[in-house]
Amino acid sequence: MTTPRFTILTEGAFGVETAKTAVSAIRYLPGRVSSILDSTRPERTVAEAIGFGGDTPIVATLERALEREPRPDALLIGIAPQGGALPDAWRPTLVAALESGLDLWSGLHAFLADDPQLSELAATRDRRLVDLRRPPPKLPVGTGRAQSTQALRVLTVGSDCNVGKMTTALEVRRVLEMRGLRTGFAATGQTGILVAGSGIAVDAVVSDFIAGAAERVTIEAAAGADVVLVEGQGSLLHPGYSGVTLGLLHGSMPQAMILCAMPSRPTIYGGNYDWVDIPPLDEVARWYEAALSWARPDTPGRVVAVSLATYDIGEDEARRAVEDAGLVTGLPATDPVRFGAEPIADAITARLASACASA
Amino acid sequence: MTTPRFTILTEGAFGVETAKTAVSAIRYLPGRVSSILDSTRPERTVAEAIGFGGDTPIVATLERALEREPRPDALLIGIAPQGGALPDAWRPTLVAALESGLDLWSGLHAFLADDPQLSELAATRDRRLVDLRRPPPKLPVGTGRAQSTQALRVLTVGSDCNVGKMTTALEVRRVLEMRGLRTGFAATGQTGILVAGSGIAVDAVVSDFIAGAAERVTIEAAAGADVVLVEGQGSLLHPGYSGVTLGLLHGSMPQAMILCAMPSRPTIYGGNYDWVDIPPLDEVARWYEAALSWARPDTPGRVVAVSLATYDIGEDEARRAVEDAGLVTGLPATDPVRFGAEPIADAITARLASACASA
Repeated sequence: MTTPRFTILTEGAFGVETAKTAVSAIRYLPGRVSSILDSTRPERTVAEAIGFGGDTPIVATLERALEREPRPDALLIGIAPQGGALPDAWRPTLVAALESGLDLWSGLHAFLADDPQLSELAATRDRRLVDLRRPPPKLPVGTGRAQSTQALRVLTVGSDCNVGKMTTALEVRRVLEMRGLRTGFAATGQTGILVAGSGIAVDAVVSDFIAGAAERVTIEAAAGADVVLVEGQGSLLHPGYSGVTLGLLHGSMPQAMILCAMPSRPTIYGGNYDWVDIPPLDEVARWYEAALSWARPDTPGRVVAVSLATYDIGEDEARRAVEDAGLVTGLPATDPVRFGAEPIADAITARLASACASA
Repeated sequence: MTTPRFTILTEGAFGVETAKTAVSAIRYLPGRVSSILDSTRPERTVAEAIGFGGDTPIVATLERALEREPRPDALLIGIAPQGGALPDAWRPTLVAALESGLDLWSGLHAFLADDPQLSELAATRDRRLVDLRRPPPKLPVGTGRAQSTQALRVLTVGSDCNVGKMTTALEVRRVLEMRGLRTGFAATGQTGILVAGSGIAVDAVVSDFIAGAAERVTIEAAAGADVVLVEGQGSLLHPGYSGVTLGLLHGSMPQAMILCAMPSRPTIYGGNYDWVDIPPLDEVARWYEAALSWARPDTPGRVVAVSLATYDIGEDEARRAVEDAGLVTGLPATDPVRFGAEPIADAITARLASACASA
């Protein structure tokens, strides 16, 4: 997959928490985001709207997006509504984008290529429809074979969905690579796949194959690496997505886990889940370690560091949250975006050293 | 779905452990099984082969199956190979069945209707292809709303796959109904759906919707009932299927669980998993209760009884296994097929009474 230049549709939802795919593209695909397409944002640039991302413009219409130089190659759907269906309100924009010569990229559960109108129009106009979440054929059932990797397996896990599991993996990878460690990234969600150019969206596979898909992406990303960072999904305590999380845990068989959380969230994200309290982080860490142990891994996987997403609170409060997380868990803690990923990278380096010493 | 008269294809694999769908059809669809189609079994009748099932014949060829009076209406694929693909060796038999005027029924992951040869032939011959595992469209994401049922929610859970979770639910339902309790059965696998005539195979849905599918079938089967028995799937300690199990647990939100196990199995079923030890049953029970508690149910769900599958050991040994299971867990235990489901039904009746008293 060559990454095109995108205009990213986030209509009505551009923001760090609400447009994960768009914000991650801005952060991790530098130079590939031509504009954000959202008529509801009065700001002129991405940096004005979310505090980073430079002078990438927010435009109100597709016409304005097409005026950018160089012209964008594709329209990327930059938000993922729960359930993953295609909102009817977006259809005219998608049709107009195809008619204007753009490809369409999407991470929705509803595949663009399965939509009769869009697929016919794309064929007529010789445009590509890229469905990031479409799983490959012939996935295996999980058998624990990820344990054969030479690379140290590290999984980001979470107190909730949407708390920075992919961002943490990518930030930690950057630091480990600066230290000279060969570091693979196993993408397991649509945004990770967009950034990495490969991977499997484990939440989109037939559920008997969650662990099998996870073990396949882990093994592939581990090839030739010292460390493989596996992008986590969901949370063991999320009533909607916990199955994906456990399958990913047992498929990737991590030797180390990074626990991701968001200090401002007392309950699970989204209006449907405010009855699900998030317990103290040391308790969540124990749950992950216990759940992994059920499948009898060769080595017990441990949570080795905590990663907080603090973008919605002030800096003093964020520093206190990081300190509190370290105290309650007895582990290194940081916000890798705000304060750097070094404490997490240190914990992984130490875990790697102990694995080598015992080998 | 009206249940036809079946000839059931189990080629090379007829047996209690190896042909779950066939054996369950014999047990729970009386009068609907015309013959077993398996050229590798020298026995003349099902009872001779597996010890129950009466004089239903085992036939070596489709021609012999078609000679039965009354003639069968459909060929049912009676075994489910891991991964769920259609073995090439069966194709000639399936083609011949369609050409002989039979419908085809299947619980495989690979849908018959998606097979170009079979679907074209079925259309030509005006025959039906029934894919028991095909999920309905537009499933929701799970939100915990199964907790709204008036009926007491009871889920069968397991130390492993293939240890009697469906059979236990059906045997307990029979006893509860004899006691005058209105009892729903929520089928979550291909065999359960075959028996019940409705349900959703949760292992075949896109994994983001496991819990949503489970909550839908739970709510539907609970309508107008005092108790709803939800068919469990897999096991929390199964490295291949644990994700399905946790999603089903959080989707169905049981107030009571029945722990199913097989005393003769020290490790997870199948050659790929002999490194996964099955721990003592009290420990497995605690894991299920803990995993359910993560999603913060309104009432803590407890394991209330143990159900053992002892068909592969002698009666004295089976009685000792039941006694041991009771001692180690402190719970009522039985093999519902061999010794009756009454102890489990008693535990559920008691749980129902305590729910009413506290309401």
